[in-house]
Amino acid sequence: MNDKDYMTLAIQEAKKAYMNNEMPIGAIITYKDIIIANSYNECEKNKNIFDHAEILAIKKASKLLNTSRLTGCTLYVTIEPCPMCAGAIMHSRIDRLVFGAFNDLYGGIISKYKIGKDSSMNHTLSVVSGIEENTCKQLVCDFFKNKIR
Amino acid sequence: MNDKDYMTLAIQEAKKAYMNNEMPIGAIITYKDIIIANSYNECEKNKNIFDHAEILAIKKASKLLNTSRLTGCTLYVTIEPCPMCAGAIMHSRIDRLVFGAFNDLYGGIISKYKIGKDSSMNHTLSVVSGIEENTCKQLVCDFFKNKIR
Repeated sequence: MNDKDYMTLAIQEAKKAYMNNEMPIGAIITYKDIIIANSYNECEKNKNIFDHAEILAIKKASKLLNTSRLTGCTLYVTIEPCPMCAGAIMHSRIDRLVFGAFNDLYGGIISKYKIGKDSSMNHTLSVVSGIEENTCKQLVCDFFKNKIR
Repeated sequence: MNDKDYMTLAIQEAKKAYMNNEMPIGAIITYKDIIIANSYNECEKNKNIFDHAEILAIKKASKLLNTSRLTGCTLYVTIEPCPMCAGAIMHSRIDRLVFGAFNDLYGGIISKYKIGKDSSMNHTLSVVSGIEENTCKQLVCDFFKNKIR
């Protein structure tokens, strides 16, 4: 499977969030080409500000690999992570991040803040962006469109 | 009690972290002048990158108040929060942040990133800095000094 294939699975996760009336963002973590975590945003359901798709995925992957350091892992997420998740990604030592749509308003990787490029963390994160960008973006647009009457 | 008193208690929390060989950072959350959460960094013990003092305090406070929105709360923390914690503070809608020492390397509130001043979150965080700055800073310096031989 390639980046586009994994992003398609992350989009399926985002659609689950959409169906649950959550901001539609989905994530997948792979390790050695095996999917070790899949998740979607569950903040509203769990009444928990931390339950972004990325954080839930990092927790699942850490549990499975029995380590807090996710070296060798790739995180796929449909929207550019916020600063909280960007910081968590750097702390987790994930090697590679692939995201779909950019978040100019609050993107923490490269758009608004460049936390994903911060060398002071002694960690180099490889970033690929824009994979299935339109589909990822459209989901979020549809979500908000349905909120406005 | 005033900001200095609460920071003194946050420093006591940081000392607990120090005794446990964790980066010495401590936090307190108050609501209507009542301490509703106290915590210290437990990343190493819990093998969990999320267990920064601020995040543990936010989780405790949210549990006690039975809400993910910490409106009316003040967070005291000995060192300026990192980007992950700064993002979490903004998501939690904490009203007021009081921190001790600045973190020029990786401070997420005002030093390196100005996440605490980001108006795109539709949340205004009131920030007070430099309370008991030297004591807070010295604890971290001592911790690292003892790590280098």
